[in-house]
Formats: sequence, C-alpha cells, structure tokens
Amino acid sequence: MELRAYQRRVNYYETDQMAIVHHSNYIRWFEEARLDFLDQAGLNYRKLEETGLIVPVVDVSCRYHVSAKYDDLLDIYAHLIAFNGVRMDYRYEVRFHDSGVLAADGTSSHCFLDEHRRPVILKRRDPVLFAKLSALVEKK
Amino acid sequence: MELRAYQRRVNYYETDQMAIVHHSNYIRWFEEARLDFLDQAGLNYRKLEETGLIVPVVDVSCRYHVSAKYDDLLDIYAHLIAFNGVRMDYRYEVRFHDSGVLAADGTSSHCFLDEHRRPVILKRRDPVLFAKLSALVEKK
Amino acid sequence: MELRAYQRRVNYYETDQMAIVHHSNYIRWFEEARLDFLDQAGLNYRKLEETGLIVPVVDVSCRYHVSAKYDDLLDIYAHLIAFNGVRMDYRYEVRFHDSGVLAADGTSSHCFLDEHRRPVILKRRDPVLFAKLSALVEKK
Amino acid sequence: MELRAYQRRVNYYETDQMAIVHHSNYIRWFEEARLDFLDQAGLNYRKLEETGLIVPVVDVSCRYHVSAKYDDLLDIYAHLIAFNGVRMDYRYEVRFHDSGVLAADGTSSHCFLDEHRRPVILKRRDPVLFAKLSALVEKK
Repeated sequence: MELRAYQRRVNYYETDQMAIVHHSNYIRWFEEARLDFLDQAGLNYRKLEETGLIVPVVDVSCRYHVSAKYDDLLDIYAHLIAFNGVRMDYRYEVRFHDSGVLAADGTSSHCFLDEHRRPVILKRRDPVLFAKLSALVEKK
Repeated sequence: MELRAYQRRVNYYETDQMAIVHHSNYIRWFEEARLDFLDQAGLNYRKLEETGLIVPVVDVSCRYHVSAKYDDLLDIYAHLIAFNGVRMDYRYEVRFHDSGVLAADGTSSHCFLDEHRRPVILKRRDPVLFAKLSALVEKK
Repeated sequence: MELRAYQRRVNYYETDQMAIVHHSNYIRWFEEARLDFLDQAGLNYRKLEETGLIVPVVDVSCRYHVSAKYDDLLDIYAHLIAFNGVRMDYRYEVRFHDSGVLAADGTSSHCFLDEHRRPVILKRRDPVLFAKLSALVEKK
Repeated sequence: MELRAYQRRVNYYETDQMAIVHHSNYIRWFEEARLDFLDQAGLNYRKLEETGLIVPVVDVSCRYHVSAKYDDLLDIYAHLIAFNGVRMDYRYEVRFHDSGVLAADGTSSHCFLDEHRRPVILKRRDPVLFAKLSALVEKK
C-alpha cells in the first residue's frame, strides 16, 4: 500500500524572530503526518482513543537541515519502521514540495496505554488493530 | 485583598518573524495571569477541575499598544470585574515591568460547566466557591 | 469575486485537557484564513513583506459558540469589512464543515508599517495594493 | 560556577486531551532553560543576537519518563556538555520540583551563523564569547 505524503503550508505564527520556523514546530508536524498516515491506513486516531486506548510519545528526535520559512509548501513523510505490539517506531522526512530538498528528518517512539494509563499488550487487547499495524511496518 | 501582578518573561519561541511577540500569545498570557490570580486567592484551578467543574472561555478580546519583544519582563494584571454565578468577566493589562508602559489590554468571559458539560448554577452547586468569587469582584 | 472558505482540520496538539481546542488557537486560525484570503486575491503576504511592509494586528476578538475537537474539519471564512488605507478590519466565522454550525466568530484590525516600523499611508506608498484591497472590501 | 535550575510551572494551554503536557512543549522548555543558563552566565541571548550572531538548533531529542501535568512545578537543568567554537551541545533534565523525579531528559546541538546566515568561526569573530562558552562546558 502506497500512502501519499502529508502536505502542509507553513503558518506565519510558526516562525520566530530568526524569520524561520521555530524548531519545536517540526515535532508537531511529525504528529500531524503520523496521524494522517494512520488515517489513510484506516486507523483514525480519534476513533482509536474512543476505544479507551492512548498512544503517548516515549521519545522524539529531529535533525534540521534547511530551514523552512513562512508560506513554504512541505511534504511530510511518516514511515512506520518498527512495531511489536508494545512499542511503535516512526521515521519522518520533511521535504520542500517544489524542490524535494530535505528540510529535516526525525524519529518518534510510542507505547500503548489503556484507560487507567497502564501498558497494554495490543495483540491481546485488540488483535485487529495489532494485525493492521503489523501490516503497515515498512520493509527495509 | 491586594494581589500581586503575574510576572512573566517573554520566551524566544513566542516571537514571530516581525521580531515581536505573536499576538496570539497574549491570549495565553491572560490565561496564565487569570489562573495565577485565582491561585493567589486560594482558588487553585487544578483543584477546582478535580471537583468536576470546568470553566471554559466564552469570549476573549485584546488590543495591542506597544509590541513586547523577546526577553522583555512583563507584569500582567488580571481583574475580576463581574460575576453572577453563571458568568465571570475579567479585564487584563500587560505592562512592561521596567517602564510600566501598557503593552496590551483585553478581556475574557467564562461560564461554568459540570462533568457532563452542562451549565452550572454555581450558587447551588458550590456555595463556598460562589462566595469566594463574589468577594473577589473588583469595586469600581 | 467569490472566495472559497479556508479548510482546516483540528490538530491533536491544539487540544487541551478539557478535550476541546484551546481557545487561543482560533486566533491563529483567523490569521491562517486571512492570509489565505489575501493569497486567493493575488496578495501573497510573504511577497508583501518582501516589499518592506508589515501588517501587524491592532486588536482581535473571538466569541466561542460550540467547541471544536481534535480531527474536526472546519471551514473558516475571512471577510474584509473595512479598509481606509491606514487601517483594515476583518470579520471571521469558523464553521463545522459537515453541519455548517458556527463554532466561533471574531474580528481583527490591522495597520500598515514600513521597514522602520512607522505608519504608512498605503495610497501613497503602494497605490496598486491600495486599489486591490479597496476592491476586496465586502459590500453590506 | 554553580548555576541554579530554571523553575517553571506548567501552563494550562500546554496540556492536550490526554490531560498531560503535549510532548512538543518540552522542546520549548529546553530552549527556556538554555537561554536562562546563558543569561545566568552573563551571556544574554538577546544581546548576543544584537551583535549579529544567531545560534540555530541543529538537532534536538527528548525522552519522556513521567508525564508532567497542568500546574506542576518543574526544575529544568541545562548542561553545556561540548563546545568547539563551531558547534555547541546541551543536555537537559526536567524534574518535578517536589519529588526530584525525572520527567524527561534530552539534548540539543547548535551552530553559529552571522548576519548573512553563514557559519561563523567563533574563536575569530568573538574571542571573548568563545572563552566564556569554553569555560561553561561541564567537566565529566
């Protein structure tokens, strides 16, 4: 299954006085791209939370290559690179839409918690979701 | 009862490419100052929410006079100007700490909802809170 | 000239612990919709700033009617309601895309400053821009 | 020289609908703590930018251990762990003020650019700043 990139124009309020995007916003864009990726794959995160699950972030990283500026159009790619039912790892690329040049790349890892904020064995709790996520993991 | 101003230094990430604070942040500072004001008065909002109440914003306004910049030290004043048990109105002033000059001023109004997001008659639900808030309303 | 609404899905990071969008974000959405409106009209704000002009916010207001939630699809309408070459006033509506129900509405006013942050008489400095903005003002 | 921790209370607008701080805000807190650390050491970043230098972020990372919540009081520690005049590396710890428990830790790296956004050899451009930063690097 080939998923499309998440497309995003830079907002004015995302810039800082260096006249570039403040670096914290890329972490937010990773989230936007990740949730769009899941949505494209039929796993809407809003519905997922309505079943009582939450999927918090365990760690995150970003490397900045070329600064994005206000009004730039970006393509953000989220790749699910590992999933074992307990933990889920993503890799991201932020590219300028016009040139394809890499603006930034990064990673995030996530766990699964239930309504009492306790770790979940996804294979047992939701085998269908487990199978869907397993199928989305990118082959090397 | 004389409450102290809420003191706040401008963060770098609150600036935009005009090299001034993005105007949306003043709305967030109003919230910081309002919750600090309530906390000083013995009405910690975290504890208040733990009783099942929430106090959402009904409207907000801000006028910008002199732009605040990164690293500026600000005094933010929150005044409770009206309260009738159903609705609560605040007025704010943001002043430069060193000069006392007015950077911005504004208003916000709030209602009270219960755990089912239904409007609350505060006088009936929590007469102690009702009395405390009534006593905080500023005399003209 | 009929301009299309600015369409916007609510991001997860725009929610707060009331499980609704934090009210400060609507002020940011107004900006997104306003700059999209100008862009549709051939007045790209990035290019406008490159001529040395900036258009800061003088005041802003918002009334909240129905809370937007994560993943909601919104239509945001920006209307230029007044412009005299020195000041420019907008009115906004945020509507749920599916139902058309009004989530929030508001206003903003703006002035024009040059590269030295001095007020600009737009009719003199940039008559073409002055004419274009004049033509965009909504008839009552 | 012993620097004090940067103290910070969690703002309401920094929470998300999981009722914890949104993870992107820790990246912003790292910035607050880093600029406070430099300020304590007599290197005010506002003044530094006024000399024409900017110090953008090259990469950033954060690991989340225990979720911070609205109204929590945090101690944020910024440690300068490496500096060679071209690049500067920091390590951060976010701890709950009351318990000392680690909420999150992370890193950031930075470079130095001049007014034309070109890399700077700090030892040549500003030997005094170079010496001050060198002296701040933490011994292992």
